Amino acid sequence: MVKVLSFALLSLATAISAVSAQLDRPGQFYRLGACPDLGCVFPPDRTNFLAGAKFDVRVEIHGEDQVQPDTKYSLSIRKLSKADAKDRKDNSNKSSSKPVDFTKFTKVQPDAPEAWNFSYFKDASAYWKGQSGDKNASTTVNVASSAWRNIKLREPGTYEVLLKYQDKASGAKKTSQLIWNVNAAPKKRKAKNVILFIGDGMTTAMITAARMISKPHISGLYQKRMHMDQFPVLGHVMTHSVDSLITDSANSASTYNTGHKSSSSALGVYADSSPSPFDDPKQELLAQLLRRRSKKNGGKGGVGIVTTAEVQDATPAAVYSHTRQRGEKATIVDQMIHGENPVLADVILGGGGKYFHSQKGGKSLNGTDYFEAYSKEGGYKTVFDRDELLAYKGKDPLLGIFHASNLDVWLDRNVYKGNLNKTASDPRGSGLPALNQPNLNDMVIKGLEVLDKRYRKEGWFMMAEAASVDKMMHPLDYDRALADLLELDNTIGKTKEWLKRNNLDKDTLVITTADHGHSFDVYGSVDTQYFNSFSDSQEIEKKNSIRTYENAGWPSYVDADGDGFPDEWNVRYTLAAGTAGFPSHREDFQVNINGARKPAIAHGNSHHHFEVYEPNPEDAPHGINKPGTIGVTDPVGVHSLQDVPLFASGPGSELFAGVHDNTEIFHKIAEVLGLGDQK
Amino acid sequence: MVKVLSFALLSLATAISAVSAQLDRPGQFYRLGACPDLGCVFPPDRTNFLAGAKFDVRVEIHGEDQVQPDTKYSLSIRKLSKADAKDRKDNSNKSSSKPVDFTKFTKVQPDAPEAWNFSYFKDASAYWKGQSGDKNASTTVNVASSAWRNIKLREPGTYEVLLKYQDKASGAKKTSQLIWNVNAAPKKRKAKNVILFIGDGMTTAMITAARMISKPHISGLYQKRMHMDQFPVLGHVMTHSVDSLITDSANSASTYNTGHKSSSSALGVYADSSPSPFDDPKQELLAQLLRRRSKKNGGKGGVGIVTTAEVQDATPAAVYSHTRQRGEKATIVDQMIHGENPVLADVILGGGGKYFHSQKGGKSLNGTDYFEAYSKEGGYKTVFDRDELLAYKGKDPLLGIFHASNLDVWLDRNVYKGNLNKTASDPRGSGLPALNQPNLNDMVIKGLEVLDKRYRKEGWFMMAEAASVDKMMHPLDYDRALADLLELDNTIGKTKEWLKRNNLDKDTLVITTADHGHSFDVYGSVDTQYFNSFSDSQEIEKKNSIRTYENAGWPSYVDADGDGFPDEWNVRYTLAAGTAGFPSHREDFQVNINGARKPAIAHGNSHHHFEVYEPNPEDAPHGINKPGTIGVTDPVGVHSLQDVPLFASGPGSELFAGVHDNTEIFHKIAEVLGLGDQK
Repeated sequence: MVKVLSFALLSLATAISAVSAQLDRPGQFYRLGACPDLGCVFPPDRTNFLAGAKFDVRVEIHGEDQVQPDTKYSLSIRKLSKADAKDRKDNSNKSSSKPVDFTKFTKVQPDAPEAWNFSYFKDASAYWKGQSGDKNASTTVNVASSAWRNIKLREPGTYEVLLKYQDKASGAKKTSQLIWNVNAAPKKRKAKNVILFIGDGMTTAMITAARMISKPHISGLYQKRMHMDQFPVLGHVMTHSVDSLITDSANSASTYNTGHKSSSSALGVYADSSPSPFDDPKQELLAQLLRRRSKKNGGKGGVGIVTTAEVQDATPAAVYSHTRQRGEKATIVDQMIHGENPVLADVILGGGGKYFHSQKGGKSLNGTDYFEAYSKEGGYKTVFDRDELLAYKGKDPLLGIFHASNLDVWLDRNVYKGNLNKTASDPRGSGLPALNQPNLNDMVIKGLEVLDKRYRKEGWFMMAEAASVDKMMHPLDYDRALADLLELDNTIGKTKEWLKRNNLDKDTLVITTADHGHSFDVYGSVDTQYFNSFSDSQEIEKKNSIRTYENAGWPSYVDADGDGFPDEWNVRYTLAAGTAGFPSHREDFQVNINGARKPAIAHGNSHHHFEVYEPNPEDAPHGINKPGTIGVTDPVGVHSLQDVPLFASGPGSELFAGVHDNTEIFHKIAEVLGLGDQK
Repeated sequence: MVKVLSFALLSLATAISAVSAQLDRPGQFYRLGACPDLGCVFPPDRTNFLAGAKFDVRVEIHGEDQVQPDTKYSLSIRKLSKADAKDRKDNSNKSSSKPVDFTKFTKVQPDAPEAWNFSYFKDASAYWKGQSGDKNASTTVNVASSAWRNIKLREPGTYEVLLKYQDKASGAKKTSQLIWNVNAAPKKRKAKNVILFIGDGMTTAMITAARMISKPHISGLYQKRMHMDQFPVLGHVMTHSVDSLITDSANSASTYNTGHKSSSSALGVYADSSPSPFDDPKQELLAQLLRRRSKKNGGKGGVGIVTTAEVQDATPAAVYSHTRQRGEKATIVDQMIHGENPVLADVILGGGGKYFHSQKGGKSLNGTDYFEAYSKEGGYKTVFDRDELLAYKGKDPLLGIFHASNLDVWLDRNVYKGNLNKTASDPRGSGLPALNQPNLNDMVIKGLEVLDKRYRKEGWFMMAEAASVDKMMHPLDYDRALADLLELDNTIGKTKEWLKRNNLDKDTLVITTADHGHSFDVYGSVDTQYFNSFSDSQEIEKKNSIRTYENAGWPSYVDADGDGFPDEWNVRYTLAAGTAGFPSHREDFQVNINGARKPAIAHGNSHHHFEVYEPNPEDAPHGINKPGTIGVTDPVGVHSLQDVPLFASGPGSELFAGVHDNTEIFHKIAEVLGLGDQK
């Protein structure tokens, strides 16, 4: 339905282009993303809403430099007739109702009018002048704004929104036209439970590489496959932001939880231009909607959040928080229990202890002890290491925090364990290392047990993230990234066993996807023994240890103990792997046994006004030289454009076959959970 | 069925490992691919066969250096009982029949015994010593061999093949055990026609990038999508070779046409170690099987081959030829009409004229005029330019050859047309350029018309290839590669319209996939105006024109005329794209208006015994410097590991959902066309 309507709507926009928003214009730096002119409305043009889901509306009128913004703008809305929404001609005045003042239509009073200003760079030239200290490089924007909070559009269909204002520089009257599309979803639930596994940053190429190092094959034909390979339904997801071709984990995860695209670093909101990170226009979260709608139905849906990152990190926070800045982690902890319509997830498992306490290294909001606050106010049982986690057999909501920051990665937790001693990572700030961290499958299975105890009848939604696929791809630590991908895959296998054992497999939709990619791929093999036999100056000979096509042969990884991971990571024949977008670094294709790679550092003796990242002399010191392919101020590899894979199994999985925009994933999950078209 | 059996078989192999073939051993260089020991059998262990499809068997016994091979080896075969095939224990002697001499079992006499020798390198160290002139670096292998031709296994099930021989060096008796699995496919045809579109080298990342430069979006939400995006079924395909993690276009395309993996450069055969490129053990081709089985049914299935490459190039040749060396193009032309069970395709459209004639630049086999031979012996109508192609309304088989070599790419055919004048590309060797070449959609639609005229009742199979996605990815010419990908996508759209208009959409399975990938991805945008404002020495500033995440914004491509291609290719804001495996080159991120890129050249003044490729000073002379990440003797970018996408629509498309080995694609097409379980 989404797809059909969006095609139909294009025609309308073409017809009334005199007042319509334009297709996005090219450029790198914008005054404000998703705002095509001086008059901006969030949610922007062509947004697809779930009927009855709440959202805020923000209007901004801009005036650049000395020009003040018009404060006498007007916002109206009307529902378009089917003919108007589908007809190629502009006959919108004939059959549709007349535009109605937005406040009157929604019966929601706006907040008091606001004004502020901000500055931005018009392009790379201005940006780098600004970075070099030129105070005149940026452009000031004066803003007049209103916001309407907690709007609902209950009636499915197509709406036209008109923002009328004056361009004070030219005196011209202007109109920004937006088309909003409200989708109904069937009320009938297809699945009682949904598990959304997110391999952060995971791509098809990474899955192929992870399979190659962990599964046995004979003459190129696998004799075992990944658990992901065995999902019956495959989809691809387009991950673009609302304002850039390349997304960040915050806004991409947010899209899965809201159905709205957004800007880098934003969670559950559209990014406005105001200075506050907490006043941006909100979108109702899947978890909020599940809680609200389940209540109406006399029940209460369960929510579980599991991650190997901090529980305040972008992907888990996208399940329960609203802020323009993912970095506001102390407030994000508070939002879980004190925010507007707090999600109060039944299961919260991961890292990020330092944002809960004010002990050594603690950064909690206002020095509050949030472990205590969660216990007292939310009735949470708290656990802090693997043994405590596994021992928990209760029915109370469970808060398990196992690390001060992100959990250590699988390879350090399980193979190079000595690296764990290097950090004062105790989640409660004792200053000691956290040596007894759970694995992802420990957390997921325990989370499922708790959700099942609390909501077997009503159903539940769990988001479980393998966070360090992304966190290790950034520093080009492919071994650590692929190990965490394998940990995810093995966890999926254990989850499917658990579901079957508990007779929940027929009731549970399982989705495995990613939020964005990295440009990782494998292009051959490396004979590391031959590579290491040459001196640093013999780059040509070192490169000749990299073989391709028929001479790439097979790498040396073996999983003889059948645990789903290679038995040995430091092997002679390894993958010749790399990415397209990377900082200047050295590459030796060998596992870093001393902890995650740090490929580039800023030497601090730059002749420039900005920091220039250069190869870290301690990373792969005998590797080949790879000058960077990204801006020199970027210290690590960056996200990439490619559509990410989505694997689905269970009831409702058929909805996920084929190619989708990331906004559609929210609508499909809402459909599967029966969250549509209610009040 | 394939999947279930292959899992079951693993257990058996584990149980009887004393005599079983090993999982492939690590390494880069092999004595002979897919041959795990001194005794080799092709087809190798774990091969899946289509019941009744023909194949040759080759046995080789090896002895290294001074050791002669055992010539008194024996080959036996038996069908295993279901219990033996599935049971974890080794009870194979209890319920299965006894092993039978292979000749007796198959009633096929082997060719006369053969002997030869060959040499190989044991690893990279030996290889580079060899490249530097060390005559002792390679190892000689003495071979004794037999071959059985045109075998059929008609009964579905699991077979055990045993090769018994003596290791003459140690005197030890040895056994190579192979498990062969014969799959039945239902005889009932699911679709009358199958179109297999191959985007050579095409990956998900390339599709995402092609969409980004050609389809309009508003705030990141596409208002039009690719035709591929609209296929209801999505699959992924694993592309590994029989003897390497990285495949070549020949063996990967061959796998789709035979169901057998093979070695780099091999078409329709397993690669043995003998010097002849024409005696290797053959596999029956999909087109041969279609011809043979349709005849039995009283009809005759049509075969169409369309490519933008030479019609002798790997992917098209895989439809109709058998040779260990894809480079044997003159013989490949001959095989189409004179080979054993010649395919005699009804439609052959593409380039490669020089292998048909002996005029200027001609390289035809024995100086034969194959245009004439095809006409006289095959009844082909011949056409040589776009006008002749479009004018053809007949029912005779059609041979259209439009270029001496590969067709020029879309960007040169349609935008930078002046580049066409640079080559004496006339398909008949006139010495003039071919200025009137058809586009891919011209060829595909005409091919469909001819197949429809000839076989509307009986049905047909067409393979249509966008060859230059790969051919332009190799020299890192992303603009040309993406343009050819868009040409493929637009052709798919026109094909679907044609099928609908001719009431064939309900009868026709359409598959779009690739044979392998390249490590291409996009990681941001480039402000080329800012990039170009700096001198060559200002690499830091040039790199800072590359912006990521929110500051990547949107590129400048616009398709205002709606033809499915960007209106302008030389734009200010372009994609920051790259690959992981590349030769040393320079990169300026801008379209090369003078023809395909040539990123690296061998300077010829190397201090080494081998050629060292360095940046071509004429390619992107003002670009940033990118030292290579592959062996220095590789002049262009290389193939990559990632699974490739597969899109399917029409009857039988449901078989292609999920993740598959490339061998399975053959079996699924055979199932859709009802080619299974016949004599």
